[in-house]
Amino acid sequence: MSRVWNFSAGPAALPSPVLERAQRELLDWNGSGVSVMEQSHRGKRFIAMAQQVEADLRELMGIPAEYAVLFEQGGATQHFAQIPMNIAREGDSADYILTGHWSEKASSEAAPYVRVNVAATSKGDSYLHMPGRASWKLDPAASYVHIATNETIHGVQFQEAPDVGNVPLVADMSSDILSAPVDVSRFGLIYAGAQKNIGPSGLVLMIIRRDLLERPTRPMAKIFRYAEHAANDSMLNTPNTWGWYLAGLTFQWLKEHGGLSAMAERNRQKAQLLYATIDGSGGFYRNPIDPTVRSRMNVPFTLHDSALDAVFLQESEAAGLMALKGHKALGGMRASLYNAVPLKAVQVLVDFMHDFTRRHG
Amino acid sequence: MSRVWNFSAGPAALPSPVLERAQRELLDWNGSGVSVMEQSHRGKRFIAMAQQVEADLRELMGIPAEYAVLFEQGGATQHFAQIPMNIAREGDSADYILTGHWSEKASSEAAPYVRVNVAATSKGDSYLHMPGRASWKLDPAASYVHIATNETIHGVQFQEAPDVGNVPLVADMSSDILSAPVDVSRFGLIYAGAQKNIGPSGLVLMIIRRDLLERPTRPMAKIFRYAEHAANDSMLNTPNTWGWYLAGLTFQWLKEHGGLSAMAERNRQKAQLLYATIDGSGGFYRNPIDPTVRSRMNVPFTLHDSALDAVFLQESEAAGLMALKGHKALGGMRASLYNAVPLKAVQVLVDFMHDFTRRHG
Repeated sequence: MSRVWNFSAGPAALPSPVLERAQRELLDWNGSGVSVMEQSHRGKRFIAMAQQVEADLRELMGIPAEYAVLFEQGGATQHFAQIPMNIAREGDSADYILTGHWSEKASSEAAPYVRVNVAATSKGDSYLHMPGRASWKLDPAASYVHIATNETIHGVQFQEAPDVGNVPLVADMSSDILSAPVDVSRFGLIYAGAQKNIGPSGLVLMIIRRDLLERPTRPMAKIFRYAEHAANDSMLNTPNTWGWYLAGLTFQWLKEHGGLSAMAERNRQKAQLLYATIDGSGGFYRNPIDPTVRSRMNVPFTLHDSALDAVFLQESEAAGLMALKGHKALGGMRASLYNAVPLKAVQVLVDFMHDFTRRHG
Repeated sequence: MSRVWNFSAGPAALPSPVLERAQRELLDWNGSGVSVMEQSHRGKRFIAMAQQVEADLRELMGIPAEYAVLFEQGGATQHFAQIPMNIAREGDSADYILTGHWSEKASSEAAPYVRVNVAATSKGDSYLHMPGRASWKLDPAASYVHIATNETIHGVQFQEAPDVGNVPLVADMSSDILSAPVDVSRFGLIYAGAQKNIGPSGLVLMIIRRDLLERPTRPMAKIFRYAEHAANDSMLNTPNTWGWYLAGLTFQWLKEHGGLSAMAERNRQKAQLLYATIDGSGGFYRNPIDPTVRSRMNVPFTLHDSALDAVFLQESEAAGLMALKGHKALGGMRASLYNAVPLKAVQVLVDFMHDFTRRHG
């Protein structure tokens, strides 16, 4: 069939021009006569590309020189564990802010390696709001403070980087990295699984302040040490070369389309259109999240009658609107509006939603 | 330029029909209207594919039901460390057989997690032979015995699985998996980075006897536990979906081309042709490895005069023969002859080598 409007939460839609270029050069990349997947990561062609990808990311995000950029594997989940292994000593504590499924998971995977202090949580009200900064019980002696800037399942998002004083702020940005400008200097460590706003799954982007690479660590294999990865330009062992390449194509696409400021404006429009449709539906559609912390990337919503869920999914799919089923933890629907989802897709979605209301209201 | 003959040690050549099919369906996979990279790994289409990929691998390798098949990340190097974390208790020992760079590296990455007993090594003679089984000093109380079945850099290969009694045999097969039939029941655990005989980098295939999943382990994050990955069908977190898909296309290609017996015969012919050319060159080309343990996958060789190396590389590349430069540890040349390298490529290579001898001999 023809290409559809893809609202998948991840692995998610990639920009069509990125896929088209990858398709064109799949068998013969960069005049090499072979695929980018068939090249040594230590060859001149691949290294030149890898350096360009990092330079493009640094330009897009304005990454200061005192930060290293790493191209890792294992998904963000592996780094939930690997981060405390690297930047906390045995016996140290770390502050975790729980605002949804993923920040909670980050804390449980970290627990074997660091004393987890839940400094704030909105779990008590099902993560419908975010605990206000003033309520956080931070420990000035913590090895770091961990947040997830956007919660893919629960649909809440930090609207700006919180001030946590001199303790390094560590942020899982898997689902909103590159969706808007961010002041990297506010963070000690930013990490993100690629499969939402960067590229295919199997790649993790990490931006880490270099002083954190020098923290003394427990005994462990070299392969788990970020400092070793940084010293070897993320080629301590064979990286995910295809993911690295596709991330680079996405960064180029972002640069060609006005960078992160333009993305932020487009993402604001998309989210506003969808939330306005939900809020203006007279209760037919509902999103119960505190409007001041609603996510611009993942919009969960329910129908007033859950008996209509199956019909909504069936009819939306028939209308070329894909992957709107909500996460099983919340039920209902979810529309993910990452960078690669155009405004047009949201317009088609809200037209469908209006029409569905007329037919089933 | 047009496609060339690719002798890369890894990431290595993939079968052209696999790449051509991936190219055709890159934007619209399996009638979904989106790329395979843009699908949830928890969607029906992807899960059906993932199950078929495992079934095809089980058929190709004859994997008994008491073995789990896992699709992991992190490269074989990460699993050098993660294997002892999973199948040895703190304080346990494990026997390592050192036959080259990779088995040596496996032992050093394991050392933080298990007492490494070097039960045999040929490092003393630069890994030019393999320590005979009779010389191995195995410990019947070891938690496992580790070997690398093929050494990508040093060009030596086990010709059959060694008998290690009742201790589980753990094998890094990164560079010879699927190159010939193997009796899986001789092994406790087989693992392999994908980027030689399976697919793109960033995927690790693991075949593990289920009783090893039940061994008591030290405290660690769930994401590091193979038992959790097995219980979740390798979807404990988002897997490398592109790698999984391409592995599946490679397995289908193997099935269509006669399976592993046919590959073994083809690989034997390829290696024989190249070694015969080297051995018959009157010393112009040299491979110093004990002929009884020469690798059929990676053939390192030197020229009688290293001053000719640069000329050889330049002329071979101009002749469409790619990536023949040897690993820096050994210098000289290396031709990797994985499954996707056709006999024709080796014929072109040996013709070039004969011609080069005539012109520079």
